[in-house]
Amino acid sequence: MSLNGNGHASHGNGNGNGLTATGNDYPVPTARAEWIVKRKEEAARTGDTNMSQMHFARKGLITEEMAYIAKLEKLSPEFIRDEVAIGRMIIPANINHPELEPMAIGVGSLCKINANIGNSALTSNVDEELRKLHTAVHYGADTVMDLSTGGDIPMIREQILRHSPVPIGTVPLYEALNRVKRLEDLNIDVYLEVIEEQAKQGVDYFTIHAGVLVEYIPLVAKRITGIVSRGGAIMAQWMTHHHKQNFLYENFDRITEIMAKYDVSYSLGDGLRPGCLADASDEAQFAELKTLGELTRRAWKSDVQVMIEGPGHIPMDQIKLQVDKEVELCDGAPFYVLGPLVTDIAPGYDHITSAIGAAMIGWHGAAMLCYVTPKEHLGLPNEKDVKDGIIAYKIAAHAADVARHRPGARDRDDAISHARYTFDWDKQFALSLDPETARSMHDETLPDDYYKEAAFCSMCGPKFCSMNWSSKVDKFNESEFGLKKPDLTQIVTEQMALRG
Amino acid sequence: MSLNGNGHASHGNGNGNGLTATGNDYPVPTARAEWIVKRKEEAARTGDTNMSQMHFARKGLITEEMAYIAKLEKLSPEFIRDEVAIGRMIIPANINHPELEPMAIGVGSLCKINANIGNSALTSNVDEELRKLHTAVHYGADTVMDLSTGGDIPMIREQILRHSPVPIGTVPLYEALNRVKRLEDLNIDVYLEVIEEQAKQGVDYFTIHAGVLVEYIPLVAKRITGIVSRGGAIMAQWMTHHHKQNFLYENFDRITEIMAKYDVSYSLGDGLRPGCLADASDEAQFAELKTLGELTRRAWKSDVQVMIEGPGHIPMDQIKLQVDKEVELCDGAPFYVLGPLVTDIAPGYDHITSAIGAAMIGWHGAAMLCYVTPKEHLGLPNEKDVKDGIIAYKIAAHAADVARHRPGARDRDDAISHARYTFDWDKQFALSLDPETARSMHDETLPDDYYKEAAFCSMCGPKFCSMNWSSKVDKFNESEFGLKKPDLTQIVTEQMALRG
Repeated sequence: MSLNGNGHASHGNGNGNGLTATGNDYPVPTARAEWIVKRKEEAARTGDTNMSQMHFARKGLITEEMAYIAKLEKLSPEFIRDEVAIGRMIIPANINHPELEPMAIGVGSLCKINANIGNSALTSNVDEELRKLHTAVHYGADTVMDLSTGGDIPMIREQILRHSPVPIGTVPLYEALNRVKRLEDLNIDVYLEVIEEQAKQGVDYFTIHAGVLVEYIPLVAKRITGIVSRGGAIMAQWMTHHHKQNFLYENFDRITEIMAKYDVSYSLGDGLRPGCLADASDEAQFAELKTLGELTRRAWKSDVQVMIEGPGHIPMDQIKLQVDKEVELCDGAPFYVLGPLVTDIAPGYDHITSAIGAAMIGWHGAAMLCYVTPKEHLGLPNEKDVKDGIIAYKIAAHAADVARHRPGARDRDDAISHARYTFDWDKQFALSLDPETARSMHDETLPDDYYKEAAFCSMCGPKFCSMNWSSKVDKFNESEFGLKKPDLTQIVTEQMALRG
Repeated sequence: MSLNGNGHASHGNGNGNGLTATGNDYPVPTARAEWIVKRKEEAARTGDTNMSQMHFARKGLITEEMAYIAKLEKLSPEFIRDEVAIGRMIIPANINHPELEPMAIGVGSLCKINANIGNSALTSNVDEELRKLHTAVHYGADTVMDLSTGGDIPMIREQILRHSPVPIGTVPLYEALNRVKRLEDLNIDVYLEVIEEQAKQGVDYFTIHAGVLVEYIPLVAKRITGIVSRGGAIMAQWMTHHHKQNFLYENFDRITEIMAKYDVSYSLGDGLRPGCLADASDEAQFAELKTLGELTRRAWKSDVQVMIEGPGHIPMDQIKLQVDKEVELCDGAPFYVLGPLVTDIAPGYDHITSAIGAAMIGWHGAAMLCYVTPKEHLGLPNEKDVKDGIIAYKIAAHAADVARHRPGARDRDDAISHARYTFDWDKQFALSLDPETARSMHDETLPDDYYKEAAFCSMCGPKFCSMNWSSKVDKFNESEFGLKKPDLTQIVTEQMALRG
């Protein structure tokens, strides 16, 4: 299995970035390791311990990561720097994650997708999680979150980090809770201890539920599904037990200090996101979002990068509103959304219900889409579920890029359409998101090699293929009117080259 | 296997409509048969041979079909009649299809879905097609098209009609082509012969590609994928061969005469629909759409019902435009769309790429969504593909109904969300689109009966379930502030009753 370049970055595909794929397709640290060493030496010399990309950008510097991303995204390095400086783009890149191939999340770059992996107390082990990581990266996940809640969490995370060319995010609250055992024993000290350890290990972004304030708790009473965010529910229960304000909110600046040292990015968690259509866009949700905006500005004061997490379950007619509100309340910090699911009635198919919402919200400006697998609401996803979730989200993110008219976004569509029309089956498979599946579906009825050049498939058979007839109409248009088909040779060649 | 009421109609569920399910769940004609007999007697007496629902509606009559639909859709019979009279709603119900449970297609009623079945010369047989029909109806297809192009087409269609409680559509051009063998030998006489035979058999709607005019042929020259509609490509090739105008256009009124006698509805085919994103919303597409508007008005002069077929492959940012144009050019005739696919790069997953577009276009006002299966572009769908396509489209249509704020559309979402929050796993499964799949995914990790009442699943395990924690927050809100959760008992009970 080779990494097929579905990702926006070319994980291990040898594009001259200095990272090379190992036998099992995982990267070994080379180029970025050197960049980081230099940067740490510089910090020791100057005493400026803020290592965040935003800090460098605001000093006017173009880091190696920014230059690398500029090339990947076909944008200017100055544009990347300026977007990072104003906070509309983040580069989640912990200085202790040298295995990383840098990538950017922001409305100015391609729409990204995240895959959640990680075990629960009931199931999974480290090998299974590494297989999920591999599958996620292979099919094009741009970042991966390790949401492990059981077993040896630090060991699993270490394995994931050391094998991941993509940014890794976590929810440190899970490990903190495992450490104290009883929920009510959670406190800022154990939390800071956990995030410092995770930051040292190289985690690139933390989901932190600092916006669930004690005064918002009554706002969820009228909801059908209450609080569905694990982090949000933990903090809410802690606050109701102690009758105190959220300790993450109260100690936000202490957290920020650690984030700055390692360049961990905030992913400000939406602890009060709606868990069903009925609860969407309610007072609780937008109250928290306003607080996330306040925290964004506080983090930015320390040059710490921030993205904002979003829902969840949202009917289609409210999706644009979600982006508009986020941009307004959080000053354009990148919006990182889970789905959203546009209906609640399809457990077993929530990769589809949520890909609909994800595509739409990506079009409207969300910067990263967190996938949902078919197992959502039912159980822990396995490797197959991870793949199904990723493919659905590659579709959503790509459709969003096309609808936003990002330069060149439609090239791959045009190339595959040309291959389709000219009955170049092998190219059609190669250019598709999942070549193996496309080929095997075709071969289910027409397996022989002969049919790879056939001007039909089993859908219509040789006598009823519209494209076959249409090519005769093309000849008519050429002989009668001198009208020629567009020449797509260059686009097809470029797109095929990208897929090696 | 029982029909589970996912359909808007309650196919064979014994809801007092006079149709009863046979042992194999197919309906036997009873109630509608009597309505039709009376109507035919009346026609013989008066000499008025126009049997279309539109004809009756325009005379101010409320037919038994309209009354039946009014009950199903929870709308007034007068509203149904008035919508049918002005052409914004159709009731595809051939007077020779007594097995039918009437249903309506229009922006004023719930969003419907169609499933295509039918063989090709290369594969399939009648038993397989009947299994596909059963699967389609079981999972909630509102209409089914038999697109058979090979074998004994009339026999397969007869079997499908006699077993179908939902309207059946066909593309008569396929059988006409099979009859003449050589495409250039097609002519209006064989075509009229075919449609009269199919109308007599009981086909409820015909896709007719009368809008592909000879002057539009040069407009497709610059397209990447030319003409991708089979009917459109056949007519284009016929016209380029003969240098003549489309004989379906030229003889439209003769066709209309037959449609009126049997109450077959027009599904005016979009022969020039775009087959890839690059070709979307181009001159060829909208030129044909304008002609379809002209033909709609011609059909309406004879009180014949019409819906308009739409694309195809459309980027998200052009989807609303498609509906706006159709409403404008075709005076609000129901829009019946294929997908649309919002990207071309995912063969093997086009049920997903197209469900995204379908949900959006349904929200914007399309009346019926023609499903696309995972096999699209690759081969003839099998029974599993039919099921996957249907589920994706049930999601899309339902999400559209919710986003359009149709009364009661969200009830099922609310009921399942309540079941989810209260850990009533059995109800959650029962209320879902595909109970077997939801249950089996849950049981993959936690099969024991004990877990059907457990306040967690394998996703988070007992210690990390947000809903579990959240219920404690609810208790706090109640004891501290006197705030109670909403009572959903009635909605859950109603929704459970609907699912037997």
